[in-house]
Amino acid sequence: MVGEVPGVLWSPVSGSDHAPLVLMSHGGGLHKKTPALMARAHDAVTTHGFTVAAIDAPGHGDRPRTVEDEQARADLRQAMAAGETERVESITVRYGTALAERAVPEWQATLDALQQLPEIGTEAPIGYGGGITLGTGIEIPLTAIEPRITAAIFGGGFVVREALLEAARRITVPVQFLLPWDDEHVDRQSALALFDAFASKEKTLHANPGDHRTIRWFGVDDEFLVRHLGRAGDSCRLTHTKARWQAAASA
Amino acid sequence: MVGEVPGVLWSPVSGSDHAPLVLMSHGGGLHKKTPALMARAHDAVTTHGFTVAAIDAPGHGDRPRTVEDEQARADLRQAMAAGETERVESITVRYGTALAERAVPEWQATLDALQQLPEIGTEAPIGYGGGITLGTGIEIPLTAIEPRITAAIFGGGFVVREALLEAARRITVPVQFLLPWDDEHVDRQSALALFDAFASKEKTLHANPGDHRTIRWFGVDDEFLVRHLGRAGDSCRLTHTKARWQAAASA
Repeated sequence: MVGEVPGVLWSPVSGSDHAPLVLMSHGGGLHKKTPALMARAHDAVTTHGFTVAAIDAPGHGDRPRTVEDEQARADLRQAMAAGETERVESITVRYGTALAERAVPEWQATLDALQQLPEIGTEAPIGYGGGITLGTGIEIPLTAIEPRITAAIFGGGFVVREALLEAARRITVPVQFLLPWDDEHVDRQSALALFDAFASKEKTLHANPGDHRTIRWFGVDDEFLVRHLGRAGDSCRLTHTKARWQAAASA
Repeated sequence: MVGEVPGVLWSPVSGSDHAPLVLMSHGGGLHKKTPALMARAHDAVTTHGFTVAAIDAPGHGDRPRTVEDEQARADLRQAMAAGETERVESITVRYGTALAERAVPEWQATLDALQQLPEIGTEAPIGYGGGITLGTGIEIPLTAIEPRITAAIFGGGFVVREALLEAARRITVPVQFLLPWDDEHVDRQSALALFDAFASKEKTLHANPGDHRTIRWFGVDDEFLVRHLGRAGDSCRLTHTKARWQAAASA
C-alpha cells in the first residue's frame, strides 16, 4: 500500500538490484492484476529481468469507489444499454480526465516509495511499459511532467481530448505507440493526431488490424524498453526459465 | 541477364539450397546496386541465409533509356528546377505508373528464370524484401497478381493513385508497411489509405519520424520475412559471420 493506493511489485528471483523499473497500467473497469497485465509483467520480468510495478487506478480494483465513481459507472452503464454513443463518449472523456487527474499524483507518490526500496533506489532506470485505453490516458500526462520516466509504450483505444494532445506535445522521451487499426469506438484520425503530437525524436507508430478488445499484435519491437532502459545482469537472463514470481505489496 | 533485364543475385556461401528468395527493388532514379539496397541485401543474406535478387527498373541503372524515359526525366528536372510542385507530382504519377506497367512482367520473367536455377527451384518460398518509393509502386501491382510472392515489405514515399489502391485491395499475404511519418512531398493520408486498403489479415504499419530520404528506422520487426518465409538451414545461421558475397548475373 502506498498511502491508500494498493500496488503490486514483481521482481526476478535474482539479479534484480537496480534492474530497470517498468510501470504498467490497466484498462478502464479493470485492475492491477488483470490477465493481460500479468502476462506482460511476467514477460518483462522473465525475459528482460525488469522489475514491474502496477497500481489500481482510482475507483478500480481493491479501491473504494467514491460517489463520483459510482455515478459515472451508473451513467455509463445506462448510456451503453440505451445505445447512446455520444453520451457514452462524453461520459468516458469526462470520467477518464477526472481519473487521470487523481491518478497522476498517486503514481508520483508510488515512484517515491519504490525508490526508497534498496533493490530499486534512485539508480534504476524507469519506463512505462504499456497498457492502452485508460492506462495511456493516465500515463501520458504523468510522463509529460515526470522526468523519472525515460521511455514509454503508449497506445490508442480511447477518445483523444485536447488536454491529452497538450501533454503529448511536452513528451520528448522515446515513445512506442501501439494502435489498434480498426477500433469501432475510437476515431482513427484522433489517435494518429496523438502520435503526431509527441515531441519525441524517437517515436514509433505500430498498427495492426483489430479493435482494442480483440487485437492480435504482430512483430512488435520487444526490445524497445531494453534499448532505452538497459536490462538486468546476465545471471538473470541465463536463469530466466527458472524465474518465479515474487508478488508483494510495495513499501 | 533475363532477356534484356540485368539482374543480380546474392546468396550465402553455404546452405542456400532452396533458401527463401527475397526480391528487392530500388527507388526512382537509382539502380539495383545502390548502397541502401546492397546493405539490406547483405543483411538478409548474412543474418537470415536468404537468397536476394534485384533487377534494374526500366530506364534505370544499366538499361537503355527510351525516348519516353528521356522525356519524362527532362520534364521532371525542368519542373523541379521551376519549383512547380503540382507538375512534379503529375509527371511522377504518370511516369511511375508507366514504369510499373513495364516492370511487372519483367519481374515475372525474372521469377521464372530464377526458379530454373537448381539452388532455387520451385521449392524456395518467395517474398518482397522492401524498397519504398518506386520499388513499392512496382511491387504492389506485382504482388497483387503474382501468387508466388507470399509476404511483402512495402513502404510510403510516393504519390498514391487509385490503381495502386485497387491493387492493394487484392493483396492478402502478410504485409509490413514502412511509413516515413514526415514526408514533405507526399500526403500522409494517402499513405495511410494505402495501408488501409491491403486485404491482408496480418498487416503492420510501422512509422518513424522523417522524410523518405532522411529517415532513420527504429525497432522495425526484422523477423517479419523469417516468420513468413522461414529461414535457411542451421548450418547457414551458425556460419553467417563468415558468409561472403556471391554476386552473379542471374540465369
